Amino acid sequence: MNYRIEKDTMGEVKVPEDKYWGAQTERSRNNFKIGPEGSMPVEIVHAFAILKKAAAYANESLGVLSSEKRDLIASVCDEILDNKLNEQFPLVIWQTGSGTQSNMNVNEVISNRAWVLKGGKLGEKSCIHPNDDVNKSQSSNDTYPTAMHIAAYKKVVEHTLPAVKKLRDTLQLKAESFKEVIKIGRTHLMDATPLTLGQEFSGYVAQLNYAIKAIENTLPHLSELALGGTAVGTGLNTPKGYDVKVAEYISKFTGLPFVTATNKFEALASHDAIVETHGALKQLAVSLFKIAQDIRLMASGPRSGIGELFIPENEPGSSIMPGKVNPTQNEAMTMVCAQVLGNDTAITFSGTQGNYELNVFKPVMAYNFLQSAQLLGDACLSFDAHCATGIEPNHKRIKELLDNSLMLVTALNTHIGYEKAAIIAKTAHKNGTTLKEEAINLGFVTSDEFDKWVRPEDMVGSLK
Amino acid sequence: MNYRIEKDTMGEVKVPEDKYWGAQTERSRNNFKIGPEGSMPVEIVHAFAILKKAAAYANESLGVLSSEKRDLIASVCDEILDNKLNEQFPLVIWQTGSGTQSNMNVNEVISNRAWVLKGGKLGEKSCIHPNDDVNKSQSSNDTYPTAMHIAAYKKVVEHTLPAVKKLRDTLQLKAESFKEVIKIGRTHLMDATPLTLGQEFSGYVAQLNYAIKAIENTLPHLSELALGGTAVGTGLNTPKGYDVKVAEYISKFTGLPFVTATNKFEALASHDAIVETHGALKQLAVSLFKIAQDIRLMASGPRSGIGELFIPENEPGSSIMPGKVNPTQNEAMTMVCAQVLGNDTAITFSGTQGNYELNVFKPVMAYNFLQSAQLLGDACLSFDAHCATGIEPNHKRIKELLDNSLMLVTALNTHIGYEKAAIIAKTAHKNGTTLKEEAINLGFVTSDEFDKWVRPEDMVGSLK
Amino acid sequence: MNYRIEKDTMGEVKVPEDKYWGAQTERSRNNFKIGPEGSMPVEIVHAFAILKKAAAYANESLGVLSSEKRDLIASVCDEILDNKLNEQFPLVIWQTGSGTQSNMNVNEVISNRAWVLKGGKLGEKSCIHPNDDVNKSQSSNDTYPTAMHIAAYKKVVEHTLPAVKKLRDTLQLKAESFKEVIKIGRTHLMDATPLTLGQEFSGYVAQLNYAIKAIENTLPHLSELALGGTAVGTGLNTPKGYDVKVAEYISKFTGLPFVTATNKFEALASHDAIVETHGALKQLAVSLFKIAQDIRLMASGPRSGIGELFIPENEPGSSIMPGKVNPTQNEAMTMVCAQVLGNDTAITFSGTQGNYELNVFKPVMAYNFLQSAQLLGDACLSFDAHCATGIEPNHKRIKELLDNSLMLVTALNTHIGYEKAAIIAKTAHKNGTTLKEEAINLGFVTSDEFDKWVRPEDMVGSLK
Amino acid sequence: MNYRIEKDTMGEVKVPEDKYWGAQTERSRNNFKIGPEGSMPVEIVHAFAILKKAAAYANESLGVLSSEKRDLIASVCDEILDNKLNEQFPLVIWQTGSGTQSNMNVNEVISNRAWVLKGGKLGEKSCIHPNDDVNKSQSSNDTYPTAMHIAAYKKVVEHTLPAVKKLRDTLQLKAESFKEVIKIGRTHLMDATPLTLGQEFSGYVAQLNYAIKAIENTLPHLSELALGGTAVGTGLNTPKGYDVKVAEYISKFTGLPFVTATNKFEALASHDAIVETHGALKQLAVSLFKIAQDIRLMASGPRSGIGELFIPENEPGSSIMPGKVNPTQNEAMTMVCAQVLGNDTAITFSGTQGNYELNVFKPVMAYNFLQSAQLLGDACLSFDAHCATGIEPNHKRIKELLDNSLMLVTALNTHIGYEKAAIIAKTAHKNGTTLKEEAINLGFVTSDEFDKWVRPEDMVGSLK
Repeated sequence: MNYRIEKDTMGEVKVPEDKYWGAQTERSRNNFKIGPEGSMPVEIVHAFAILKKAAAYANESLGVLSSEKRDLIASVCDEILDNKLNEQFPLVIWQTGSGTQSNMNVNEVISNRAWVLKGGKLGEKSCIHPNDDVNKSQSSNDTYPTAMHIAAYKKVVEHTLPAVKKLRDTLQLKAESFKEVIKIGRTHLMDATPLTLGQEFSGYVAQLNYAIKAIENTLPHLSELALGGTAVGTGLNTPKGYDVKVAEYISKFTGLPFVTATNKFEALASHDAIVETHGALKQLAVSLFKIAQDIRLMASGPRSGIGELFIPENEPGSSIMPGKVNPTQNEAMTMVCAQVLGNDTAITFSGTQGNYELNVFKPVMAYNFLQSAQLLGDACLSFDAHCATGIEPNHKRIKELLDNSLMLVTALNTHIGYEKAAIIAKTAHKNGTTLKEEAINLGFVTSDEFDKWVRPEDMVGSLK
Repeated sequence: MNYRIEKDTMGEVKVPEDKYWGAQTERSRNNFKIGPEGSMPVEIVHAFAILKKAAAYANESLGVLSSEKRDLIASVCDEILDNKLNEQFPLVIWQTGSGTQSNMNVNEVISNRAWVLKGGKLGEKSCIHPNDDVNKSQSSNDTYPTAMHIAAYKKVVEHTLPAVKKLRDTLQLKAESFKEVIKIGRTHLMDATPLTLGQEFSGYVAQLNYAIKAIENTLPHLSELALGGTAVGTGLNTPKGYDVKVAEYISKFTGLPFVTATNKFEALASHDAIVETHGALKQLAVSLFKIAQDIRLMASGPRSGIGELFIPENEPGSSIMPGKVNPTQNEAMTMVCAQVLGNDTAITFSGTQGNYELNVFKPVMAYNFLQSAQLLGDACLSFDAHCATGIEPNHKRIKELLDNSLMLVTALNTHIGYEKAAIIAKTAHKNGTTLKEEAINLGFVTSDEFDKWVRPEDMVGSLK
Repeated sequence: MNYRIEKDTMGEVKVPEDKYWGAQTERSRNNFKIGPEGSMPVEIVHAFAILKKAAAYANESLGVLSSEKRDLIASVCDEILDNKLNEQFPLVIWQTGSGTQSNMNVNEVISNRAWVLKGGKLGEKSCIHPNDDVNKSQSSNDTYPTAMHIAAYKKVVEHTLPAVKKLRDTLQLKAESFKEVIKIGRTHLMDATPLTLGQEFSGYVAQLNYAIKAIENTLPHLSELALGGTAVGTGLNTPKGYDVKVAEYISKFTGLPFVTATNKFEALASHDAIVETHGALKQLAVSLFKIAQDIRLMASGPRSGIGELFIPENEPGSSIMPGKVNPTQNEAMTMVCAQVLGNDTAITFSGTQGNYELNVFKPVMAYNFLQSAQLLGDACLSFDAHCATGIEPNHKRIKELLDNSLMLVTALNTHIGYEKAAIIAKTAHKNGTTLKEEAINLGFVTSDEFDKWVRPEDMVGSLK
Repeated sequence: MNYRIEKDTMGEVKVPEDKYWGAQTERSRNNFKIGPEGSMPVEIVHAFAILKKAAAYANESLGVLSSEKRDLIASVCDEILDNKLNEQFPLVIWQTGSGTQSNMNVNEVISNRAWVLKGGKLGEKSCIHPNDDVNKSQSSNDTYPTAMHIAAYKKVVEHTLPAVKKLRDTLQLKAESFKEVIKIGRTHLMDATPLTLGQEFSGYVAQLNYAIKAIENTLPHLSELALGGTAVGTGLNTPKGYDVKVAEYISKFTGLPFVTATNKFEALASHDAIVETHGALKQLAVSLFKIAQDIRLMASGPRSGIGELFIPENEPGSSIMPGKVNPTQNEAMTMVCAQVLGNDTAITFSGTQGNYELNVFKPVMAYNFLQSAQLLGDACLSFDAHCATGIEPNHKRIKELLDNSLMLVTALNTHIGYEKAAIIAKTAHKNGTTLKEEAINLGFVTSDEFDKWVRPEDMVGSLK
């Protein structure tokens, strides 16, 4: 490979000659061979492009950058956002905890690419200085957290939430469609009093609605941007009004309600907003796990399980057992939930470890957050398309299990008391008989009373 | 010990003759010798007393319970709430996951104690039946989650939040009082540009304000009560309007805005509200950890650490090193935070494990939640009283460290550019000299320029 | 309450007049009202008594303590170990992270009680100085971790391991007793090829054997004691040979193979041994969760679940559903496992947070460790006594589910190939028929071949 | 893109015409668009190639596969291991939890590629059947866990352990080289009695030695392979002796001590071996966190921190603060540790969730395990090369801090008692004077006694 020489304040570095990045990127690339190259999430790179463009606009409008420089910077940012320069960002997550070199990577690429766009040659000194121009009124310490918030917010509102809502809507349709399917309830995994399948699914819908609300509750904090705080939160080397202005541009460029953080010291030194929103994503994972688990239990069988639900058969389920079909979407979903729980531990731990004016666990927090938000969204869409929409009741099996149930005896409590009702159930259980037989044999109710009082359809409440 | 015979649907059981509990409590006591006796939190027992009383009132007002029975039940509930019957609740957390026997413990105690209050003798059949009267219109499956929400909500709003706010107010006073104390900033644990001590503390205040807001965001979900769902969420064996009515009584008796859950199936089968609020408590722990950690780092020394803060000296710090004093409140606080992180794992895991119509990890979730809420509140009060209120700056040390700093060079960036500024800092670092000496030696600025441009007080932004 | 005046290096403190503790204990008691009083685990107090006695013996044998003082100290230690002084240890977990005041609590109680034993009056200056005599050749920094290791090691080898082995033995007996009970296998919760119930249980036995081995692997590290390191690990103020000698006495007094730590700096500044052994306890929790979960799934029903196993019926299972019985031991066990997972998070987090010569998360680590070891042991004994020993197969149901299974078709793979076998299974599934009917209809095998090739008893491997 | 038609037991599927995979791979690819394509770790694919080759050899040697088929299968496996077919494995982690389609992906690629190697044309029916030949004597249920163990074991012994040992050796060299550098100790972040820098580093070495031992303790369990268990652990459809034979071939092909699992039911239904070894990796992360944290605290400054160590300056540390250098390797290391803690949560959770004969969280467990083992190894090598080897003491600063310390007073305990020593330290602290001045002023010691008794070099124990 051929190289050119680039310089920074530490001296000269050899950089691949066809790459736009500079000395600092190359140093980081050489010093941090940890995990696969280029693992810094592309969403972070794009968020940097948005904020660099916004900073250029804010700087220009406040009179500290020329409009020519602004436009050159903005052009390169647009190229980045168009995925034209993806191979220019080789750095890894596991670098400095402030993401300084990823900020510099963007600064260097913009500087060098701008020069080429303007007709210069890569390797010559650019008209745009990576620090003094591209990074003007900025520090890694306020840009990286700003990029985290932009990337996280976008991912959640543009991917995760729509996907969850889609699944929620499907489950809502199922709840309505199943509202008259009476089935046995189960508590402690044991037979209990009946409910409708629609009621069961309405619980899932309620869980997702609470999870959506919980996520939305956290968004105002996440919408606050550190930019304008620069090195330690004081806003050193920024023009007056810059923080509000730059947030306005970011809001304008993204169409999302970003605002400047009310306290820049908090915004650099802690990442509680990331902890907060991911906490809500974790709650979503808790809800999704329960839903996916329930559905696979109810679909278990086909002959020796519960068998109350049919779910779509998508792939041959076994390389050795012919004809086997498995609840694979449920498995993918529950594995994603396990991952999100793990990611929450990584994020929470990292969130505690800020010191003084900076938390230096930024990249690991961004990585875990974006993975969770991506996977949860993807898994909801996949589960929706390949499982939820195809769920159907196995009416025959549902009726069979309902009719057999001993817990219908609960309907007698208010007529003959808990203790006598218990004797009926226990006797039927012991003898392998029906409740009605034993209820009459024991002389607690007449046949007519039994038929009038023990009606599953009267035990499931209102079916609204 | 002497015993009397009690009966339930499974037969006879020997119960200590002076205890009000009955057969089911005793079975659970014998079958679950796991951890210390009586570990079921007293807050749960009290919450049960509140809900049993409310249920009696609702049942009476809906015509399914006599006013005499209502009043007897209510009298015993009041005794429980007055801590007069604490020794009547011997059960442990590690019992059935629905808490059924803890519900029955309350039912049995109320039944037997009511009979004694009415003039009867313990061991005789009571006029109040534990299931048919005390538990009327209820199931363990809706009472236990209701007790969880009552206990959790009360603990958070009556203990945790006031304590956090007290600490927040103290830190706010400190932030104001320290607003003109200029000190060195630190990022990556390394010297950075200056800020004021007041700004640093304002970051802590902001963290706590966000944490308070995050907790408050979760309260509406936590205020929803499962009561009225009975066994599986359908409300079987409840009179019409009961769920709304009973929640009104609970709200009246507690003075807190409890309402009936909009979806009872969710309220029994998942405990996402507990997951949600504890997620916010975990965020509070993350914030408190950072704050307590920062303060102990800044108070470290007295001679070989950072030494920028004085904190109260509360106890001799060493059994071998005479005169040693340690940041013990910070240590208690950070240990509490570690516990809360652990509790969050237990709660999250448990939250995923609902099946069908019931989650049977209720007691472990209640236990961990209440411990976190109690400890966080206690630790905030302790830290506030014995540390935060006594924090004072070590002005001499702060000034010494500020004046030495090489990062004041950052103020030159906008005048001479990042690269020349870097040369000044590196030269001074290498030579052990001052920035000013080297700035002039290198010919980058004059002495007057340096004095005009490099002024810490101009580097800390507005001191509002 | 009446008080007497006690003094330490910070001055005078009022102490309840009938208590043996002194000024430092009282300071900590007043300064740390966090959680319930006296929460420091009694096992830690007892471990302190063991090590104080051992230190007195070692000091005497090395010529730095009189034999009279040794015997006085030892007498009080024996009283502590006899649970005669339990109410003298009021401190909480959430104190200084070194546990210094808990060390001083023991020192003060021994000092004052020794004086009383010798005929003195409480409140007078004792002949035994808490620091110079009781704490001789010690520091909190080496005594507290030593107490942690003693308490943890004892709990694990005297309680947890025997309890797990008892359960393992019961499951082993069941595995042997069920070795010819052929049943359907299930993978992905779906019907699979058969195995025996004994084989299934042999898997549980194997899990527990691996968990036992994993715990035992960690014990050598846990057996190493910090004592002799004093303040920072250097052994300052200890006589030559003291560390080895004191470990010998501890080993002698406990009958357990404790040795002096090879590196005292590691032993004070990290608690990796606690992290290590608790990691193995966590693995045990993982194993127990799977076992308890499987058994409750197989015992689910009685009529609308899997129903392959009968487990003991221990308590009425519902306050509203008469006759209901639930897998309550399984629920207690799985809740304990959830707690252990949470405790592991708290311990792991705490383990990372040592700084320089000391980790100051000692009490929280000790508390979580001891809770896990206690609960796991208790839960194994409870599960063993009230569930495992009573497990019986429901032969009728097992046979019914086996005979119905479509996955017996797998036996045909080696005769007719996977693809034809799949066609048979799918056709039978679609038509609700038997494998044999469709196998013959499709012309893939003769009736005789089917009977010869598809024999569940030939599909389960050797039944050793 | 052009397609060809492939078939499986569910019917026809369109597959990209130039790819070797078949119908089942393509179904999974279409049904699981969760996260980036091809995320199934390459180490798992390679482990599959090893086991498929071993299975072919075992099958041939036991007379159930022709030697021609064996050789064809082995040839393709060798190509996979040579990374020649990497683009043939497009599946994701988030698929079925058994990894069935990843097993089929390998079966299909081997089948089709073998045909092409033999001179056939892709799309024609191969002479090697994916199920009946490549998968002979296997099931996904025993191959995937076998691949997990092979990949995990190899990664740990070939990458993680050598990297940790390299770092351990460097730290050991440093410990020896620093063995006479006396410095102040710190406990609770506060000044304490002295020790040598070599002693401090010896503690790090000890931590890593324990972590290495802990990992090695888990390897025997991890070396056990499920292969031979087939669908549910019974070994259905395998020739006699197959399980032992195939493990021997795997051992031979890898040069690692793999053996057949003693209990195949455990090996399919639980993944406790993965939980176990990852638990030890988590312990390593705990140790590395402490070490990296200590070193960055001691290297903090350069002027306003602790400043006792020099670490290599690798990159400009700030985009705004000229001349700043940060402990970036420590940051990468501690972020990796945070990730490993998160991964442990995901693995532990997944480990609990086996049901009956199978745990269907296999891919998520494999993914997290391999990430941890890779990152820990990479981070150790990076930290070793770019930080540890370059650590040097700042002798001037170390001496300055040592000489100032008040805790040298501890040396007087054995001469004048703890209480008088405390008065000296407190007086010097209050007056800002030296210990010696106050010791003499207070009349507790003479100048000569002080000089004789308070000697840091006598306080650090033996310097072996």
